[in-house]
Amino acid sequence: MSSSTTAPVRQSSVRAHNLALVLNTVANSADPPSRAAVAGATGLTRATVSALVDDLIAGGLLVERDPPPRTGAGRPAAGLALTAAGPAGLGLEINVDYLAACVVDLTGAVRQRFIEHADQRPAPAADALAALGVLAARARLAAEADGLVVAGAAVAVPGLVSAGLVRVAPNLGWQDVDAPGLLRAVPELAGLPVTVDNEANLAALGELRVAGGEQTFLYVSGEIGIGAGLVIDGELYRGARGWSGEIGHLTVDPDGKPCRCGASGCLEQYAGQEALAADEPGAAAALGIALSTVVNLLDVPVIVLGGAYAPYFERLRDGIEAELRRRVLTAGLAPVTLRAARLGADAAVRGAADAVIRGVRDDPAGWLRRAG
Amino acid sequence: MSSSTTAPVRQSSVRAHNLALVLNTVANSADPPSRAAVAGATGLTRATVSALVDDLIAGGLLVERDPPPRTGAGRPAAGLALTAAGPAGLGLEINVDYLAACVVDLTGAVRQRFIEHADQRPAPAADALAALGVLAARARLAAEADGLVVAGAAVAVPGLVSAGLVRVAPNLGWQDVDAPGLLRAVPELAGLPVTVDNEANLAALGELRVAGGEQTFLYVSGEIGIGAGLVIDGELYRGARGWSGEIGHLTVDPDGKPCRCGASGCLEQYAGQEALAADEPGAAAALGIALSTVVNLLDVPVIVLGGAYAPYFERLRDGIEAELRRRVLTAGLAPVTLRAARLGADAAVRGAADAVIRGVRDDPAGWLRRAG
Repeated sequence: MSSSTTAPVRQSSVRAHNLALVLNTVANSADPPSRAAVAGATGLTRATVSALVDDLIAGGLLVERDPPPRTGAGRPAAGLALTAAGPAGLGLEINVDYLAACVVDLTGAVRQRFIEHADQRPAPAADALAALGVLAARARLAAEADGLVVAGAAVAVPGLVSAGLVRVAPNLGWQDVDAPGLLRAVPELAGLPVTVDNEANLAALGELRVAGGEQTFLYVSGEIGIGAGLVIDGELYRGARGWSGEIGHLTVDPDGKPCRCGASGCLEQYAGQEALAADEPGAAAALGIALSTVVNLLDVPVIVLGGAYAPYFERLRDGIEAELRRRVLTAGLAPVTLRAARLGADAAVRGAADAVIRGVRDDPAGWLRRAG
Repeated sequence: MSSSTTAPVRQSSVRAHNLALVLNTVANSADPPSRAAVAGATGLTRATVSALVDDLIAGGLLVERDPPPRTGAGRPAAGLALTAAGPAGLGLEINVDYLAACVVDLTGAVRQRFIEHADQRPAPAADALAALGVLAARARLAAEADGLVVAGAAVAVPGLVSAGLVRVAPNLGWQDVDAPGLLRAVPELAGLPVTVDNEANLAALGELRVAGGEQTFLYVSGEIGIGAGLVIDGELYRGARGWSGEIGHLTVDPDGKPCRCGASGCLEQYAGQEALAADEPGAAAALGIALSTVVNLLDVPVIVLGGAYAPYFERLRDGIEAELRRRVLTAGLAPVTLRAARLGADAAVRGAADAVIRGVRDDPAGWLRRAG
C-alpha cells in the first residue's frame, strides 16, 4: 500500500550479499551441505548457488569434499565446508601482566597461540605495543608458513576505546594511545587491517559466538583490573559511547582503598587478581556484592566468570552465591546461574580472532577483491 | 532474489494498520494536517485516507477543524486533530505513602487528577487496592461526566511485576497480589481493561513519551523505596524477566542498616524519602555512589531524578555530582547530565495514563469495534 520508492539494488551488491549468504549457510550447517541443500536453505536457484560456490572455492574460502561411497541408488552429492587453509584472524591481547596472540582459521580452529607473561605497567605504551608487535609478527609468520593468510588483527585492551583510540586504560597508565597505528608500524604487520576493542567486550563476544553461550549474560573478566561485557538477546550492549561494563570501578567501600582510577573503594582493589593470589578472604564477598548490584539493576539471568577468575572459580563460587542469595531482590523467584567461562583465560584473544574471521565471513566479496 | 513466500495480508489487518498509521500521523504533526497532507506523509492514496479519516471521525477519535480564513488564491483545507472528547486513559498509582489517579485524554491533556496521602503499609493489599478503587471510580465518573470514555486503566506499583501479578513489593509487604483482578472487582470499574506495571518503568516511559525526554537515560524514582527505569535508544529495557531497575537494593554499605528486602546496607535505607525528610547528610553521597555504579556499568549519559527526588533536586545536586566526578571512570571524557524529572512527582501516574492512550492510538480498529 505504501508508495515509498526503493533504490534500485546494484548487481554487485546483490552478488556480495549472496556470497555472504552462501558462505554463512555453509558455516552454520551441522554437516557439509551439498550445493542443492544450500540452494534449498537460501532460496537461491541452483545455478546461482553453483556460480557463487565456484567463486568461493576459487577465492580460497570454501572446499568441496568428495562424496561418501555410493550405498544405494542415486549418486551421493559432494559436501561443502569452510576451508582450513584460507584466511585467518589474528587475535591479540595486551593485559597488565601478559601479552597474547592467537591465529584462528575460517573453521574456528586455533592454529597458533603465543603468550608472554611480563608486567606491562613500567613500560610506556609504545614499548608495550612494540613487544606485542613482535609476538604478532611471530604468529603471522608461523601462520603463513602453515598455509594461512592473515586477514587482519583485532587487539583486546583493558581500557576504554573509542574511534580506534584507547582513551583511558588506568591499570596500564595509558591515555589516548593509537594502538592500531603503533602496531601497523611493525614492519611484519605493515598493510594489515588492525582494530582495537575493550578486552571484556571481546571476551563476552568470544563466549557468545565461539563457545556458544547463552543469549543474555554478564561476562566478568578478572585480571589485575576487572571488566565486564553485557550481552542482551545475543547482542553486546556497548552503552551510549561504547564505555559500558566498567564493573571494576563499582564502589564496594566508599571510604576504602585508593584505586588507580582516582576514586576509592573500587571493586578491583578487593577482588582483582592480586587479591585472589594473596588469598584475601573478602574477594568472593566483594565480587558477590558487585554482582548482586548488576542483577538488581539489569535482571541478568547468567553470570560468566572469565580471565583470571576462571581458574579460581570453584574457590569463589560459594562466597559469591551467598551474596547473590542475600542481596538480589528476585533471588527467591528465579536463581542466578553462575559459571566459569568456557574459553577460560583465552576468551578475549579468541573473541578478537573471531571478530576478524566474522569480518571475512560477512563480506567475502571484499576478501575476494583483496585476495584477487 | 529470495523465493521465500509471504502470507497474504488480510484486508482487515491492512485496514487496522492504516487506521493506526493515519491516527499517529495526525498525532505527531506539529499543526493540524489536511487530508492531503496525511496522504502525502503516509504514501496512501487520498481516497483511502479520506475513507479512513471518515471512520476515525465517526468513531470519535479525530475531529476536523474549520479551515482558517481565506487569505489569497485557492481554498484553505480543513485541519485534522485528535479529539479531546473521546477515549481517555486512567492512570493509577499505589505507593507507600499515597494513592493517585489521573485521567488523560487522547490529546495528552490531564482532565482529572486525584491524590490521597496515607500510609499504605499497615493495610493488607486488598484494602489498599479497594481504597485505590474508590479513587479510580471517582476519576472515571468525573471523566465521563466531562464527556470522555475511559478506555482502560494502568496501575503503577512499587514492586516486581510479571504476567499481571505483583510478585514482590517489599515496602508494601505484598507478595503475589493480583492488582488488576482486585481493581476490576470494584463495581464502578467492572469491564474496564486493567494492566499493572512497575512504577519506575511507567515513570520512565512518561518522561520519554509525555515530556519528550532524551532517548537514552536512567530515570530514578525516589519514594520510600527507590526504583529505576532504564531507557536505551527510546526503548524501556526491562531485563530478562522484567525485573530490572531495582536500584534501591544496590549495596551502599555491606554491613549497614537492615533493609525490608532482607539484605543490609541497601541504597533506599540511606537515600529514600524518609532519609531526605530527616535531612540526613549522607543521602546525596549515597545516591551519587549508586549512580556512579550505574554509569560505570552502562555508560548512560543522562540521569533523571523523579518522584520524591524532584522537589529535593537542588539540594541533592552538588552532592551527587561530586561523587559522579570522583567515581565515574569516564567523567573526564564526557560529563553525565543530571536533571529533575519534567513531570515531577507525577511521572508514574502520567506514564500509566499515557500507556492506555497509546494502546488506543496503536489499535484504533480495536477501539472502533469496542465502541461501535
